[in-house]
Amino acid sequence: ARSGFEEVIFCQGKQTQHLVEIYKHFYEHDSNVLGTRASREQYEAVKEVLPMAQYDEMSKVLSIYSKERELTGCVAVCTGGTSDIPVAEEAAQTAEFFGAKVKRIYDVGVAGIHRLLSKVDVIEDANCIIAVAGMEGALAGVVAGLVDKPVIAVPTSVGYGANFGGLSALLTMLNSCAEGIAVVNIDNGFGAGYMATQINRLAER
Amino acid sequence: ARSGFEEVIFCQGKQTQHLVEIYKHFYEHDSNVLGTRASREQYEAVKEVLPMAQYDEMSKVLSIYSKERELTGCVAVCTGGTSDIPVAEEAAQTAEFFGAKVKRIYDVGVAGIHRLLSKVDVIEDANCIIAVAGMEGALAGVVAGLVDKPVIAVPTSVGYGANFGGLSALLTMLNSCAEGIAVVNIDNGFGAGYMATQINRLAER
Amino acid sequence: ARSGFEEVIFCQGKQTQHLVEIYKHFYEHDSNVLGTRASREQYEAVKEVLPMAQYDEMSKVLSIYSKERELTGCVAVCTGGTSDIPVAEEAAQTAEFFGAKVKRIYDVGVAGIHRLLSKVDVIEDANCIIAVAGMEGALAGVVAGLVDKPVIAVPTSVGYGANFGGLSALLTMLNSCAEGIAVVNIDNGFGAGYMATQINRLAER
Amino acid sequence: ARSGFEEVIFCQGKQTQHLVEIYKHFYEHDSNVLGTRASREQYEAVKEVLPMAQYDEMSKVLSIYSKERELTGCVAVCTGGTSDIPVAEEAAQTAEFFGAKVKRIYDVGVAGIHRLLSKVDVIEDANCIIAVAGMEGALAGVVAGLVDKPVIAVPTSVGYGANFGGLSALLTMLNSCAEGIAVVNIDNGFGAGYMATQINRLAER
Amino acid sequence: ARSGFEEVIFCQGKQTQHLVEIYKHFYEHDSNVLGTRASREQYEAVKEVLPMAQYDEMSKVLSIYSKERELTGCVAVCTGGTSDIPVAEEAAQTAEFFGAKVKRIYDVGVAGIHRLLSKVDVIEDANCIIAVAGMEGALAGVVAGLVDKPVIAVPTSVGYGANFGGLSALLTMLNSCAEGIAVVNIDNGFGAGYMATQINRLAER
Amino acid sequence: ARSGFEEVIFCQGKQTQHLVEIYKHFYEHDSNVLGTRASREQYEAVKEVLPMAQYDEMSKVLSIYSKERELTGCVAVCTGGTSDIPVAEEAAQTAEFFGAKVKRIYDVGVAGIHRLLSKVDVIEDANCIIAVAGMEGALAGVVAGLVDKPVIAVPTSVGYGANFGGLSALLTMLNSCAEGIAVVNIDNGFGAGYMATQINRLAER
Amino acid sequence: ARSGFEEVIFCQGKQTQHLVEIYKHFYEHDSNVLGTRASREQYEAVKEVLPMAQYDEMSKVLSIYSKERELTGCVAVCTGGTSDIPVAEEAAQTAEFFGAKVKRIYDVGVAGIHRLLSKVDVIEDANCIIAVAGMEGALAGVVAGLVDKPVIAVPTSVGYGANFGGLSALLTMLNSCAEGIAVVNIDNGFGAGYMATQINRLAER
Amino acid sequence: ARSGFEEVIFCQGKQTQHLVEIYKHFYEHDSNVLGTRASREQYEAVKEVLPMAQYDEMSKVLSIYSKERELTGCVAVCTGGTSDIPVAEEAAQTAEFFGAKVKRIYDVGVAGIHRLLSKVDVIEDANCIIAVAGMEGALAGVVAGLVDKPVIAVPTSVGYGANFGGLSALLTMLNSCAEGIAVVNIDNGFGAGYMATQINRLAER
Ligand SMILES: Nc1ncnc2c1ncn2[C@@H]1O[C@H](COP(=O)(O)O)[C@@H](O)[C@H]1O
Ligand SMILES: Nc1ncnc2c1ncn2[C@@H]1O[C@H](COP(=O)(O)O)[C@@H](O)[C@H]1O
Ligand SMILES: Nc1ncnc2c1ncn2[C@@H]1O[C@H](COP(=O)(O)O)[C@@H](O)[C@H]1O
Ligand SMILES: Nc1ncnc2c1ncn2[C@@H]1O[C@H](COP(=O)(O)O)[C@@H](O)[C@H]1O
Ligand SMILES: [Mg+2]
Ligand SMILES: [Mg+2]
Ligand SMILES: [Mg+2]
Ligand SMILES: [Mg+2]
Ligand SMILES: [Mg+2]
Ligand SMILES: [Mg+2]
Ligand SMILES: [Mg+2]
Ligand SMILES: [Mg+2]
Repeated sequence: ARSGFEEVIFCQGKQTQHLVEIYKHFYEHDSNVLGTRASREQYEAVKEVLPMAQYDEMSKVLSIYSKERELTGCVAVCTGGTSDIPVAEEAAQTAEFFGAKVKRIYDVGVAGIHRLLSKVDVIEDANCIIAVAGMEGALAGVVAGLVDKPVIAVPTSVGYGANFGGLSALLTMLNSCAEGIAVVNIDNGFGAGYMATQINRLAER
Repeated sequence: ARSGFEEVIFCQGKQTQHLVEIYKHFYEHDSNVLGTRASREQYEAVKEVLPMAQYDEMSKVLSIYSKERELTGCVAVCTGGTSDIPVAEEAAQTAEFFGAKVKRIYDVGVAGIHRLLSKVDVIEDANCIIAVAGMEGALAGVVAGLVDKPVIAVPTSVGYGANFGGLSALLTMLNSCAEGIAVVNIDNGFGAGYMATQINRLAER
Repeated sequence: ARSGFEEVIFCQGKQTQHLVEIYKHFYEHDSNVLGTRASREQYEAVKEVLPMAQYDEMSKVLSIYSKERELTGCVAVCTGGTSDIPVAEEAAQTAEFFGAKVKRIYDVGVAGIHRLLSKVDVIEDANCIIAVAGMEGALAGVVAGLVDKPVIAVPTSVGYGANFGGLSALLTMLNSCAEGIAVVNIDNGFGAGYMATQINRLAER
Repeated sequence: ARSGFEEVIFCQGKQTQHLVEIYKHFYEHDSNVLGTRASREQYEAVKEVLPMAQYDEMSKVLSIYSKERELTGCVAVCTGGTSDIPVAEEAAQTAEFFGAKVKRIYDVGVAGIHRLLSKVDVIEDANCIIAVAGMEGALAGVVAGLVDKPVIAVPTSVGYGANFGGLSALLTMLNSCAEGIAVVNIDNGFGAGYMATQINRLAER
Repeated sequence: ARSGFEEVIFCQGKQTQHLVEIYKHFYEHDSNVLGTRASREQYEAVKEVLPMAQYDEMSKVLSIYSKERELTGCVAVCTGGTSDIPVAEEAAQTAEFFGAKVKRIYDVGVAGIHRLLSKVDVIEDANCIIAVAGMEGALAGVVAGLVDKPVIAVPTSVGYGANFGGLSALLTMLNSCAEGIAVVNIDNGFGAGYMATQINRLAER
Repeated sequence: ARSGFEEVIFCQGKQTQHLVEIYKHFYEHDSNVLGTRASREQYEAVKEVLPMAQYDEMSKVLSIYSKERELTGCVAVCTGGTSDIPVAEEAAQTAEFFGAKVKRIYDVGVAGIHRLLSKVDVIEDANCIIAVAGMEGALAGVVAGLVDKPVIAVPTSVGYGANFGGLSALLTMLNSCAEGIAVVNIDNGFGAGYMATQINRLAER
Repeated sequence: ARSGFEEVIFCQGKQTQHLVEIYKHFYEHDSNVLGTRASREQYEAVKEVLPMAQYDEMSKVLSIYSKERELTGCVAVCTGGTSDIPVAEEAAQTAEFFGAKVKRIYDVGVAGIHRLLSKVDVIEDANCIIAVAGMEGALAGVVAGLVDKPVIAVPTSVGYGANFGGLSALLTMLNSCAEGIAVVNIDNGFGAGYMATQINRLAER
Repeated sequence: ARSGFEEVIFCQGKQTQHLVEIYKHFYEHDSNVLGTRASREQYEAVKEVLPMAQYDEMSKVLSIYSKERELTGCVAVCTGGTSDIPVAEEAAQTAEFFGAKVKRIYDVGVAGIHRLLSKVDVIEDANCIIAVAGMEGALAGVVAGLVDKPVIAVPTSVGYGANFGGLSALLTMLNSCAEGIAVVNIDNGFGAGYMATQINRLAER
């Protein structure tokens, strides 16, 4: 990270000992550290050395907050179903880590469109919307059609059969006819959270 | 066709002379004939011999109606955009050919969801809904979520880039989280119209 | 579910504690509950709290029937092989849950076509047919060619090699030349059972 | 070709002048020549030099028969529809060129299974069956289930939408549950005709 | 468009007469009109009726500017090669149509990384970057690594062989390890231009 | 099986108790039983009841031979590498079960073509060749080019990376330019063995 | 090009006027110019201005040689069939342009392996081999198995059906079990020729 | 291996007892043995019999060096990230086994291009470069653009979502616009190391 007091680690696949050293190094030089896709085992090991480390089982985020940070602006994070929440939380906690206020609007998928419609006012107030959905992935396009703010679409691998590991939601989102959508990789909550913060900062500066 | 006075022809790729003979044969034995995916050239050739033949440029349907038929029940045909209308018309005219009343609700795609919502009452009255959409193909799932009647989803090849000739809409529809959807082949208006008629007949008998 | 006394839960991937709460909530408000893709562990946990819960190992259906329901009409459920039965049972039990009588015609795949032909009379009597098949998936098209009722085709992931997790059967069914077929997602017995009930109700009202 | 008095040319994409020379060369050394996928233009050019050349518009076969050959045994060639006939004729004429008697049983696709069933006796008499089908491609598996002779399956590119240029029929055939099927490339009538002749010869020697 | 004095038309595939009417209608009600993917024929027809229509051969943009508009902020549009310029111009002209200043930095692909490096200062000054690239599509990730502003990546269908109509660049961009990238559909310059304007407006308000 | 004293069972995925019953049933009515893809656990259970059952760990074939059978003719089974042997043995033992003599020529892949060339004489003597290969799968085409007997190609899922579970070898074999090849499903040794026996019988009758 | 007196142009898709200017510019500054994938129209236009331009219809190479260059070392270029020659010539002429001697060994595909074997001595003498093949693409692996020099494999789009535009040959080559192969894009003769020259130069310096 | 005192074994999937015998056989006849993709269990078993066997956990290389070998020339091995190191080490140790000096330049991916740029001098000195990268895989093209030596690109399966097991990096590398790249199979460090040695030897002879 270029901003001076935040560092990010992609924990998945890293050997425990190596990971602990990275956390220690960043903690000593930088203070705030965000790790994504961390396992509970990795958490236990880091905590041994850095007891202030926090772990969120849902999002697999393993973070250290030593310097405080004021949150500004607003990013809205929506999900189609409850199974998409882990990815949504990775996005939301990434955005918070980098300084954005986050509103969570979960389980508003298009199969029951009225739940989504009742939340449009809340969504509209955000500077940027993150739309997280698996299976058919139609949420992002519908949200983008309702609101005139940039929508970052996150396809998830939630589903089975012809969803081919998230391909179905990915293609839906790339082909959306609504204006103001761009898409990140399947299950890439971090990427969406990061870009949402960039947009939020531009809006709030 | 088993029902005694309707016959169906898939015109695409058939040699003109061969096609004319089929039309003549069916016309002599059966009376009503529905041809799909007919070219204007094929129409000219058939018309030469059977002047009562009718051709619809939009749907590429080339039909002969000699016996009258009363239309019953109701099938609703919806499209996401205006580019989906040729496929929708193949579906609608197929359903009419086999005896169903059809309501057309076109250009109600999810990028502007309010147009669709204003038509829910009309859609709800049908025995069966045909939802035709390309690109992201989200229309079918949203309709199925709004209405408790069977929805036959028709993905179209309308779009570009990562729609891969209709694959994107096809996968969206197969992965829909809404209840009461089944899907036919890309651009297969005929298949949807046929099955909708079967359902409509069951409802009206 | 909109109908007032049935609720449906997709159990797969839900955390046990969360799932138990949903069952309790639905049971208290609604009476009949259908859960699909439930594990034995999930069943044990629900049963602890709601002892009237029933579990079918084959279909992975975890249901609670407190209000009785009369079954009407008829849905036929056919499979190509015995390995397709779990998906077929999900379909059959879903249809029964929503009020349809079901006839099961299993292991009548096209590699031995005479077994299927001997059952045509039985199949013909149904309002709607669910055809469940993996590998080559040809059953649905053959059935649709034999019977003039709507056929809902369910591809299964049964097979190996170039079946690519059910893609092979899915494509076969989408490309069928027979009239009156539509397709649901790979292994989606629930979706087929739901739509079959909708059609059955229309036929029986 | 190793057998001494037959030569094969794949005409597609060959420059006319080059092709004429190959025909002349083979004609002078060998007598009988089989060219597949020839265009009418190529035929005209070859005929100019070798007036005994024969061209079949349907199969695109451009052949020269100077030495007579007795036909033996029997290969059955079946098709699902009439659009598959060009590929079937490439297969049939290849088999005849290499010395097999051929029985043609066309348009017996599985959507109307009774037409196929009425021909089983004829098919059964052959040493080997070539089953040619596009779209869903189910014909090959059904034939193999009915008859205990080797079936060579030829998927065709006939169809649209999710047939993906013949992929759908190819996968169906590869995944067939029936015993005694093997598959050649999409539209490869030549390959099927050649292998059928090899089998026919073994049976007749 | 919701903003009151801009309307957008996707011209591709629209019938000329129908298109002219839309242009007339929008021109009378709204003033400024942006049409994308217009052919020269469509332009000629529109110009007949609305002589102030302007057409850009490169980008296929067919626009009418009747109300003036001040441009604010800055969007940078980069391309990997010269073949990507048509898509880049669709993006750039869309952004200008909606009120953003645009800087064009073309032909700075990663095969010659120093050309890109020499432009980093210019790129850094923008509120948002649009990175347009075909073939390997690596430009977007490299730019995102160099600059801390949101990058909208546009894969193009430029290339051959294993680029599979833009799939290669699309996957590269979705899998980028750099922070702050999101992706639109293959060749979707319009979508990128629109979202860039949304971000630019947030930054400039 | 139609031939009267052989029965085949696809063991994979069958529940142990169910499987034991099938074996017992077939053993009592028919005598010889061939089971493919059996696990060691399934073998232990069958053996408990039918102690004459034999199990081959390599091929996963679980068979009972009670009636003797004379082997006739010759089928050659070749493999590219040693990892392909399990599939080759399924093929070879299937052919033997149905009455063919089998010659095994293993590990003669094209990366060291001279080993294959030194075996051509042996291969040539067979009525039919089964060529089993993974990874690049080139063995089948090379063998077919060397020998004028029908070649049944079996792609295996051996390999990694861009072999995509056997797709690579499958496509190679389908696209072979040699004459006299047809292909079965990935890893389908049984299918190849069955068809080879059919051909062998025709040659030996 | 960094070497000082050669420049390369990818002509495909470039506008004629633009192309002529590039040729002129390079000719004036650099002398030798290599253009690939040039059309005859492009050639005519360039020749008008630069009469010394040479065009090879087969390879679509449009070149200007003003400074002489001595050829050194040896690169062998092999093809599977005659249809692969255009791609092979692009490779061969690229290698010659950059200073390598080239030996052409065409039409030595693996369906007739003895033709290839008779050329092994010649191939072995080269510093580097370019193996060009479509359809099954097995040539590259067989050559690499025979010779201990680096092999650059070029899959071509020659073929039909399940070759999917060259995918089949590409996968074969990537999965080769032989030692010493690397692969370039489908039909990318230029890329192979360039890398072969790099290797040839290292060997000859 | 042809060179007389090196042998290579692909350990993955080999049965332990069989593997030990191969090692013993090669050790007795040849001295130096390189095994790739060996598990720790395989190592333990080999070591029991051949105590001089060495195992590298990271690269899974299990080797025996009994004859000494002087290293010559230079191959540079670069990686995009730290997760690519296992594949890079397979490449590096293969090159060393066959006699090349290796320089390791790890974790220089394009998301932070300046780290790579600072190493260009070192890379440039090598005879050949191996570029190992997963996810977007852009490293290879950027390196090839910076250096005029042959680049062997190794895509890795590192990543998630739309990387589809390494497909994304593979396509990126195949489509690179830079001059002088060829690609090996996903995760095929061995293949890259072997070919790099061939090139290195040519340069050093
Ligand atoms: N329709 C076809 N499809 C595939 N291969 C063919 C076909 N016709 C001929 N061939 C093969 O192509 C070879 C001749 O190719 P060529 O030398 O290019 O004329 C023949 O020996 C056959 O193996
Ligand atoms: N080049 C383009 N690619 C994708 N979508 C576009 C493009 N140009 C315009 N659109 C969208 O298409 C809508 C208009 O479509 P239509 O109503 O068919 O004219 C606009 O509101 C845009 O959202
Ligand atoms: N390894 C195999 N792969 C594919 N099909 C097989 C295999 N083994 C047996 N079969 C087929 O499976 C049928 C038996 O299936 P089942 O009735 O499920 O036991 C046999 O008649 C064979 O056609
Ligand atoms: N990691 C690897 N990936 C691909 N091929 C390999 C690898 N390691 C060794 N090989 C090849 O496998 C051959 C040995 O295979 P095997 O005879 O099965 O041990 C060697 O000669 C190499 O060509
Ligand atoms: Mg919007
Ligand atoms: Mg509904
Ligand atoms: Mg029917
Ligand atoms: Mg059979
Ligand atoms: Mg950045
Ligand atoms: Mg042969
Ligand atoms: Mg070699
Ligand atoms: Mg270079």
